[in-house]
Amino acid sequence: MTLHATKPHSLTDDFRSSMRVAAASVSLVTARDESGGFHGMAVTSAASLSMEPPSMMVAVNRSASIFPVISRTGRFCLNLMNDDHGGLLECFSRSDMRERRFTPEHWAEGLGGLPTLRGALSVHVCTVAAAHDFGTHTVFFGQVDDVILPEPMAQNPAPIIWLNGTRRHLRAIA
Amino acid sequence: MTLHATKPHSLTDDFRSSMRVAAASVSLVTARDESGGFHGMAVTSAASLSMEPPSMMVAVNRSASIFPVISRTGRFCLNLMNDDHGGLLECFSRSDMRERRFTPEHWAEGLGGLPTLRGALSVHVCTVAAAHDFGTHTVFFGQVDDVILPEPMAQNPAPIIWLNGTRRHLRAIA
Repeated sequence: MTLHATKPHSLTDDFRSSMRVAAASVSLVTARDESGGFHGMAVTSAASLSMEPPSMMVAVNRSASIFPVISRTGRFCLNLMNDDHGGLLECFSRSDMRERRFTPEHWAEGLGGLPTLRGALSVHVCTVAAAHDFGTHTVFFGQVDDVILPEPMAQNPAPIIWLNGTRRHLRAIA
Repeated sequence: MTLHATKPHSLTDDFRSSMRVAAASVSLVTARDESGGFHGMAVTSAASLSMEPPSMMVAVNRSASIFPVISRTGRFCLNLMNDDHGGLLECFSRSDMRERRFTPEHWAEGLGGLPTLRGALSVHVCTVAAAHDFGTHTVFFGQVDDVILPEPMAQNPAPIIWLNGTRRHLRAIA
């Protein structure tokens, strides 16, 4: 049992540790600026919000370069990465690989010309319906304008899962 | 490629399908009512929000019985389930097993007497800092008052992952 009186860690330390045990699918949140430039960032903070209307939410750090683009344009995409996208994820994780992020091999243009990821398990093209600041982040509530799914749907979807600082595979429970 | 002109599905159908390919950790969101009664619900919609201050967000359907309890008391816990908690998850998924949800075997009382899950990968005890309605759901922004972690920390954390309607195990990438 944890006793507060003897607890040696700070709340912030413990919070940081707790983030390491939460497994989450990795999405690329993408946006298109007024000059047609593509922007993107890997996140594990995307989640479904409501079925009626179809909507998604994502928390974005206000210091991220994509933040002002989403704020100004009011549009974003959530691209759920497939296990095959490991190399692309590395490009989005390393600033020295920035120029290899948006290659035609990986990207198409969806509604409004937004960058949509080829081979994604799902793509949600969203209009910002509301935005709420909290601490260092802003949560964007996105009304879903379009959903792009593989045809046919993946029978054994294999998202990229991030846990404890490493990528994991999923396997079915026997 | 998906062509809109020939797309036979509605946006809502496609959105529902897209939910099936998103893998997510399962948490029990719990609350304590004014009479000391425990309430809980399984969710995949919990996510970290901000590191400064430590905070979490969760989307709750306003038709869920826990919704008014969180709204009135302004407190909730997010209990990240361990792979060992499969039996307990079944109790929270089936209304005929409702009476087996809050047994002393599984639950302790945390800050403010809130129900905290024994053996959870992490527990976040939160005060509601903001709440935003959207569609059928309300998103609670919770400032984290306490974090409970196993001692020692799990070296190989094994959360319950829900994907495509079934539970999955995680394995490390070789």
